[in-house]
Amino acid sequence: MATPSNRKLTGLVAATFTPLTPQGDVDVSLIGPYVDYLVEQQGVRSVFVNGTTGEGLSLSVDERKDLAEEWCLRGKDKLEQVIVHVGCLSLKDSQELARHAAETGADGIAVIAPSFFKPSSPDTLRRFLQEVAAAAPELPFYYYHIPAMTGLSMRACEILEGIEDSIPSFRGLKFSGGDLMDFGQCVSKCPPHWSLLYGVDEQLLSALVMGASGAVGSTYNYLGNRVSSLLSAFDEGDLGKARTIQFQIQDIISYAVKQGFDLAVNKQLMCEVSGLPLGPPRLPLLPCSSPRAQSLAQRLRQVLGLQKM
Amino acid sequence: MATPSNRKLTGLVAATFTPLTPQGDVDVSLIGPYVDYLVEQQGVRSVFVNGTTGEGLSLSVDERKDLAEEWCLRGKDKLEQVIVHVGCLSLKDSQELARHAAETGADGIAVIAPSFFKPSSPDTLRRFLQEVAAAAPELPFYYYHIPAMTGLSMRACEILEGIEDSIPSFRGLKFSGGDLMDFGQCVSKCPPHWSLLYGVDEQLLSALVMGASGAVGSTYNYLGNRVSSLLSAFDEGDLGKARTIQFQIQDIISYAVKQGFDLAVNKQLMCEVSGLPLGPPRLPLLPCSSPRAQSLAQRLRQVLGLQKM
Amino acid sequence: MATPSNRKLTGLVAATFTPLTPQGDVDVSLIGPYVDYLVEQQGVRSVFVNGTTGEGLSLSVDERKDLAEEWCLRGKDKLEQVIVHVGCLSLKDSQELARHAAETGADGIAVIAPSFFKPSSPDTLRRFLQEVAAAAPELPFYYYHIPAMTGLSMRACEILEGIEDSIPSFRGLKFSGGDLMDFGQCVSKCPPHWSLLYGVDEQLLSALVMGASGAVGSTYNYLGNRVSSLLSAFDEGDLGKARTIQFQIQDIISYAVKQGFDLAVNKQLMCEVSGLPLGPPRLPLLPCSSPRAQSLAQRLRQVLGLQKM
Amino acid sequence: MATPSNRKLTGLVAATFTPLTPQGDVDVSLIGPYVDYLVEQQGVRSVFVNGTTGEGLSLSVDERKDLAEEWCLRGKDKLEQVIVHVGCLSLKDSQELARHAAETGADGIAVIAPSFFKPSSPDTLRRFLQEVAAAAPELPFYYYHIPAMTGLSMRACEILEGIEDSIPSFRGLKFSGGDLMDFGQCVSKCPPHWSLLYGVDEQLLSALVMGASGAVGSTYNYLGNRVSSLLSAFDEGDLGKARTIQFQIQDIISYAVKQGFDLAVNKQLMCEVSGLPLGPPRLPLLPCSSPRAQSLAQRLRQVLGLQKM
Repeated sequence: MATPSNRKLTGLVAATFTPLTPQGDVDVSLIGPYVDYLVEQQGVRSVFVNGTTGEGLSLSVDERKDLAEEWCLRGKDKLEQVIVHVGCLSLKDSQELARHAAETGADGIAVIAPSFFKPSSPDTLRRFLQEVAAAAPELPFYYYHIPAMTGLSMRACEILEGIEDSIPSFRGLKFSGGDLMDFGQCVSKCPPHWSLLYGVDEQLLSALVMGASGAVGSTYNYLGNRVSSLLSAFDEGDLGKARTIQFQIQDIISYAVKQGFDLAVNKQLMCEVSGLPLGPPRLPLLPCSSPRAQSLAQRLRQVLGLQKM
Repeated sequence: MATPSNRKLTGLVAATFTPLTPQGDVDVSLIGPYVDYLVEQQGVRSVFVNGTTGEGLSLSVDERKDLAEEWCLRGKDKLEQVIVHVGCLSLKDSQELARHAAETGADGIAVIAPSFFKPSSPDTLRRFLQEVAAAAPELPFYYYHIPAMTGLSMRACEILEGIEDSIPSFRGLKFSGGDLMDFGQCVSKCPPHWSLLYGVDEQLLSALVMGASGAVGSTYNYLGNRVSSLLSAFDEGDLGKARTIQFQIQDIISYAVKQGFDLAVNKQLMCEVSGLPLGPPRLPLLPCSSPRAQSLAQRLRQVLGLQKM
Repeated sequence: MATPSNRKLTGLVAATFTPLTPQGDVDVSLIGPYVDYLVEQQGVRSVFVNGTTGEGLSLSVDERKDLAEEWCLRGKDKLEQVIVHVGCLSLKDSQELARHAAETGADGIAVIAPSFFKPSSPDTLRRFLQEVAAAAPELPFYYYHIPAMTGLSMRACEILEGIEDSIPSFRGLKFSGGDLMDFGQCVSKCPPHWSLLYGVDEQLLSALVMGASGAVGSTYNYLGNRVSSLLSAFDEGDLGKARTIQFQIQDIISYAVKQGFDLAVNKQLMCEVSGLPLGPPRLPLLPCSSPRAQSLAQRLRQVLGLQKM
Repeated sequence: MATPSNRKLTGLVAATFTPLTPQGDVDVSLIGPYVDYLVEQQGVRSVFVNGTTGEGLSLSVDERKDLAEEWCLRGKDKLEQVIVHVGCLSLKDSQELARHAAETGADGIAVIAPSFFKPSSPDTLRRFLQEVAAAAPELPFYYYHIPAMTGLSMRACEILEGIEDSIPSFRGLKFSGGDLMDFGQCVSKCPPHWSLLYGVDEQLLSALVMGASGAVGSTYNYLGNRVSSLLSAFDEGDLGKARTIQFQIQDIISYAVKQGFDLAVNKQLMCEVSGLPLGPPRLPLLPCSSPRAQSLAQRLRQVLGLQKM
C-alpha cells in the first residue's frame, strides 16, 4: 500500500458547486467547462468537491460517486489537486465514498464531523474520522471543521491532538470557523507536512497572519483572481494592499448577507458571474431568482472595479 | 391508488432501537424477539422504526430498508402499526425509502426536517416534506418535529398550516419539543383524522392535558407498562395518580441525565431491562459500559417499586 | 426577629407594569388606580412588583424603592400579597432593596439570578441568593427562575436542593421556563410550606397538571378574570373547559408574537385594555404605537368573546 | 461647552480589576500602587475602568464613582488616558455616572449595550447610547461591543452607521468579539478621528492586520510588556515575531481556559504576577484559590521565558 503523499495543499482551493439539471438531477456534463473556467478565468487550480458548497450532504451516495469521478477525470492534467469530501451522517456511507475516492484517483479526502448525533468528545470524533480514513489509507486525509454548520462546539486543536497516531494519513484541516486562537494553536502545533486551510472567506487575512497555508472557499469560484492578489500582497508584506482587497470581499459578502445570502444565492451568483448554467440547488434549499443574483453580480463587479458604479 | 388510511395512531408508540452485532452490522434476527418483548412484556403495540432512537440517520439506505422490512414482517398480526421513519438529509434517499416503505407494507411514514441545510421557512419545509410524501401517496404521512436535534427554530403549528393542501396523505406529527403553546395550537387547529403524538417522555402529562393523542418515545421500550397506567389514570381523571407516575419517570430520567444519558446509555439500559442483546450503538456514539447501565436499571426498578430500595 | 410567614402564595399574581410619565420618570400616582383595577376588574389580589414586567432592572435603586413603597401603601387592605422583586446585578443594591422591602411592609421578596456574570453552579447562585435573603430574614424569600432572560442554563430543582439550610426564609419560586421535568421535580421535592408559581402564561395548564401552586404573569393584568376561570375549571376536573381557555390565551399571545410582541407592546396593550395611562417603557425598549396595541386589544376582545369577530 | 477631544486612543489599554477588601468592599487605597505597577512594570499608560474586568456591573453607582475618582486622581500625570465605563442596565444610572465622569476629569467614557432587555435594533441601541452620551457631551464617547457577554447579536458596523449624527462626541469602540468581517467593516468606514480598539487578547494579531488602532484587555495588566513587543513587531512588518508572541499569549490563555478560566481566576492571577493584593471578586463570582493562580502564574512565566520550564 502506498504511503499518503506529503504534497502540501496551498493557495486557493475552490469549494465547488454541484451542477444540477432544471429537474434537479446531477449534471456531470458541466464539470469539464467548470474546470476550464476555474483554471482559465479564476486562476484556481485545486478544488474541494462535494462539500457544503457542493451540497454533498443533500446528495445520494451514487450521485457523490459520479461527481467525484467526473472531477477527477476532467481535472486530470488541468487541476493540481482534487480533494473529495466524503463525510456523511452514516459512517458506512463515508467509508464507501472514501474507498471510491481512492479508486477514482482523488488527491485527498476530507470529512466533516457528523452533526445529527454529535461526537461527545474530541476522542470520539477522532475515532469516527479514523474509521473513515482507514477505508482509504493511501489518500491524504483532511478534517473539515465547520462548527456553525455542525453545531459541534469542540476546539479543532483538541481534535488534532495526537491524531496522526490513529490516522497516519492525516495531512491537515479545513478550518471554517471564527475562533482564531483555536486556529492559531493548530498552526503552532502543526508539523511541516500538514496543510491548514482557512475557510471563512470574509476574514481570510486574519487567518493568514496566524499562519494559514491557504484557503478553501466558495467565493473563490468567482473571486479567485482577486483573492490571489490578496495572497500575493500578503506574501510580499504589503498589508495595506491585502487589507484593501479583504475589505472589497467583505463589502460584497456583507451586501449579499443583507439581501439574504445562502447557498442558493451563492450558486446563482456563480451562474451569473461565470456564465455556467449550474442549475438550481436541491431542497431544502430554494432557488434564487435570477434578478436577485444579477443585482449581486453587479455589486461584485462594481466593488472590484470591473464596472462603473 | 389507495387513499391513505384515517386510522388514528394513539396510545403508546415505542421508538425502537436498532439491533447491531458486536461488529457494528445491523442484526435483523433480533427484531422478532423484540416485537414479542414489546407486546408481551410492555403492552406496546405500535412502533416508530429508524427514527432518532433507531439511529436511522447513522444507517445506510440499504440497512434502513432491511430494518423496515423485518419490522413489518415480524410485526404482522402482532403489532397494530409500524411507522417507518424515512427522513434523510438527501431528498432522493428519503423518496427511495418512502417508496420502499409502501412496498413493504408499513402503516405510515414519518419525516424529520433536514438539519444540515435548514429550510428557511415553514413553506420550504413543507415543500421538502411534500416531495417525500408524493413518493408514497397511499401511506399516512407524519411530520417528525424535534427542534433540539435539528436546530430548526420554526414552530410546528406554522408548518402544519394548510399542509393537507400540498400533502393529501398528511395525518399528524410526532412533537418532540418543549414549546407547549406551539403544541397546544397544533391541537386546537387539528382536524379529527390527524394524530398528534408527543415525544418528550419526561413531560408527557403536560402534553396530554393540552390534548395529545398519544406518545412516541424511547423509554416506552422499557417503561411501557407504567406509562400505560399514566395514560389510563389521565383518561379516568385521576390526575394525582398520573402525576405520581410522571414523577417516577422524571426521577429515572433525571437520574440518568446526571450520569450522562445519551442514546448509547439508553440502548444499553434497554438491553439490561429487556435482556435483548441489542448490541452497541454506531459511531459517533460510543458504547455504554454494562455496569453503568446496570446501575441505571437498578434505579429504574427501585423507583418503579419492582425492587427494594 | 420574626420568623418568615408560611402563608402560601397561590392563585393568580399579576406581574405589574411600572407607570412612567411621558418624559420617562416613574409616576407613582397611578399605583392606587392600578390596585383598584386589578382587584375590581380582574379579580387579582396579589402582585409581583419591579420584576421583568415592571422593568425592575431598568430602574434605579431609588425608583424601585418608591415603587415598592407605593404598592405596599396602596395595596394595604386591598391586596392579599405584595411581593417585591429586589434582584439586581449588584449584590449590594439587592441587599439594600431587600432591607427596604422589609421596612416597607412587603409580604415577600423575590430575586432573579444575576445575568451579566453568571453563577458557575447552583451552589454559587444559592450563595448569592443567601446574601440577599440575609438582609431581610423576616420576609418570605422566592427565587425567580427565568432562563430565557438570564441565559442561565442550570436547573431550578438543583438550585432548590438544600436551599432552606442556607436560606431559612426560602418559601418558593417563580418558574418562568419551559422545562416541565425540571418544574415537576421541584414540585415532587417541595415541602408543603413552599409555593411554586408558574410564569409562562401561554402554557399554564401544563404546569398546573404538574402541581403548580399558582401563577405569576404579565397577562394576568388584563386576562385575570379569564384565567381565574381556567384555574377553577382545572380544580373542578373540567380539563376540557380549562383547555379551551388555555387555547384562547394561546391564540391571543401567538397573534401578538406574530406582530412582534415585547414588553413595550405588552405594556401598551395593558393601557388599551385597562384604560390606565401607564406611559411608555424605558430605553432600551421603544414605545409601541397606540394603533398597534388597539389592534391587539381588539383581537383579545374577539377571542374572549367580549366583542363580535 | 468644550468639544470632545479628537486625541486618538491607541496602543495598549489595560482593562483594570477592582480592588476589594477581604470583606468585599471597594478598596481605593490600592489604585495608586496599581497605577505605578502598570506604568513602571508593564509599560501600560491607558486604562479602561469599571468595565467587565472591573466588575463594573456588580458595583453600586456610588462604588463606581469612588473608583472613577481615584483612577483619575492617581493617574494624573502618570497615565495618558483614563476611560471610565459608565454602562448600566438602567439608563438613569448610566447618565448619572456619565455626568460624574465628566466632573471627575475622565478622558472618555464607554458604554456597553444593556443586556437584560436587549435593544431590538441598531437604531434602538444608538438611542440608548445617545441618551447616555448627552449627559457628558464634552467627553469622547466609546461604544463597548462584547456580544458574548451581552447576548446581543447585531453587528457593530450597523450600530456605527451614522452614529456621529446622533452622538457628536462619538470617538470609537472597543470591539470584544470574534467577527472580523464586522470589525473590518468598522475599520473600512471609520473616519480618522475614531479609535477602533480590539478586545479579544488571544487573537489581537488578527485584528491588527484588519486595521485595529490598539487593544483593550484584561491580560495587558500582566502581559503588557510582551504584547507591546507584539505591537512593535507588527508595526515593523515582522509578522513572524508578532505571531510567535501571539502564540505565547494563546498558550497561556488556553492553558488557563482548560483549568477553568473566569474573571475570578484572572484577578487572582494578576495578584500573583503583580504582587498587588486586589482581593476576591464579588458574588456571583467565587474567589479562586491561590495555589491554582500560582500554577497559572508559573505557566505564564515559563511560556514567556521568564523562568525555566
